[in-house]
Amino acid sequence: MRISELSTRSEAAATAIKYYVREGLLPDGTRTGRTTTVYDEDHLARIRLIRALTHVGGLPVSRVREVLAAVDDPATPIQHVLGVTQQATAGDLEEPSPEAAERVDALLAARGWQVHPGNPGRRMVAAALDAADGTGHIFTDETLRGYAAASEQVATADLDAVARTGTRAAAAESVVLGTALGDRVLAGLRRIAQEAETQRRLPGPGCGAGSDGPSADPVDPAVGPRDR
Amino acid sequence: MRISELSTRSEAAATAIKYYVREGLLPDGTRTGRTTTVYDEDHLARIRLIRALTHVGGLPVSRVREVLAAVDDPATPIQHVLGVTQQATAGDLEEPSPEAAERVDALLAARGWQVHPGNPGRRMVAAALDAADGTGHIFTDETLRGYAAASEQVATADLDAVARTGTRAAAAESVVLGTALGDRVLAGLRRIAQEAETQRRLPGPGCGAGSDGPSADPVDPAVGPRDR
Repeated sequence: MRISELSTRSEAAATAIKYYVREGLLPDGTRTGRTTTVYDEDHLARIRLIRALTHVGGLPVSRVREVLAAVDDPATPIQHVLGVTQQATAGDLEEPSPEAAERVDALLAARGWQVHPGNPGRRMVAAALDAADGTGHIFTDETLRGYAAASEQVATADLDAVARTGTRAAAAESVVLGTALGDRVLAGLRRIAQEAETQRRLPGPGCGAGSDGPSADPVDPAVGPRDR
Repeated sequence: MRISELSTRSEAAATAIKYYVREGLLPDGTRTGRTTTVYDEDHLARIRLIRALTHVGGLPVSRVREVLAAVDDPATPIQHVLGVTQQATAGDLEEPSPEAAERVDALLAARGWQVHPGNPGRRMVAAALDAADGTGHIFTDETLRGYAAASEQVATADLDAVARTGTRAAAAESVVLGTALGDRVLAGLRRIAQEAETQRRLPGPGCGAGSDGPSADPVDPAVGPRDR
């Protein structure tokens, strides 16, 4: 296909596509004439991968290049692709307090989770605990245990998805997209489940989840679009 | 306490604290002299709330103001505080394709989840499905069902945490911080669980999760800090 069709199908501007080629993220197309270059389905798939990382994952081009290098090297094991992707999509990580780091370690030990000290998740969790500290321990041990059990279910679904892929290339793509886009899918499903669970609890007796009164209408106007 | 102590304890610069007061996010301190203003623990808690929303949640000041207005109004039910917080922390939401929106609706129906059409989670999930589209259906129905079950566990933990709070003010704070910081906690725990689950599967027979070879070392160097 020509660049115009590639642009339409990928929803990336032709200038963006040329930029990806210049930056070495996307292989160049095949020249079929003095002014014509054609692209194939692999180019399309690669652009979606790039945009999932940049537009949804918020990664800078340098990080995308690292991830793609791991994806494209057939000698790189899938668990290494996962490690590179986890690091790249973890965002800026501040140094957590020793107290928060200890709470995370205790949670991991209780769950029997064996991970490398450099797993970015440890710092992500500890930094969030620090940010909540001093505001009345929002994340109690009980809440963290509930989150950990749910996260194990998520990781199982993630690895099952990778295992269902047929080739190393498909597995690598699944790891990268699943990690970068999956956080967003899960944040969305959490919001849906929170509302569904609130509505399930509120009409019943003795619930209220901290609400200061009965709700006349189970659908709260705050979560709907405003009237125009 | 003086502003210098408030600054040290909150880790917010004095100029940032004055900015929050000017923007109406933080009540002014009490003047005790011609040049002295004192602040209390409520100021400290409020600064942590503001910074959790701005620094971790990435919210602009206008959105923080909306959330705090809902938190501070005793007549606003907790489920409304949740709705406002969900909207504010959902990020930019593009219009999803009808196909992706339909897949999300089918998932909700299968789960028996009743939510308002305006719940931002619907668009978050659908937009992520669109971003993955054309790259070989990473998020299969099976994966989405696993994610949905896990999200229900998360929402249960969230609402249990809110229910354990004693006052409406504490419940509102729990809703806001739990939503804004909880996404980050969960993204971190997911990365930890992914590595733990990978290591659990890899040494066993017949596993590999798409890996192209046996792993000699269960700890992958990619997830550790680089040697210097």
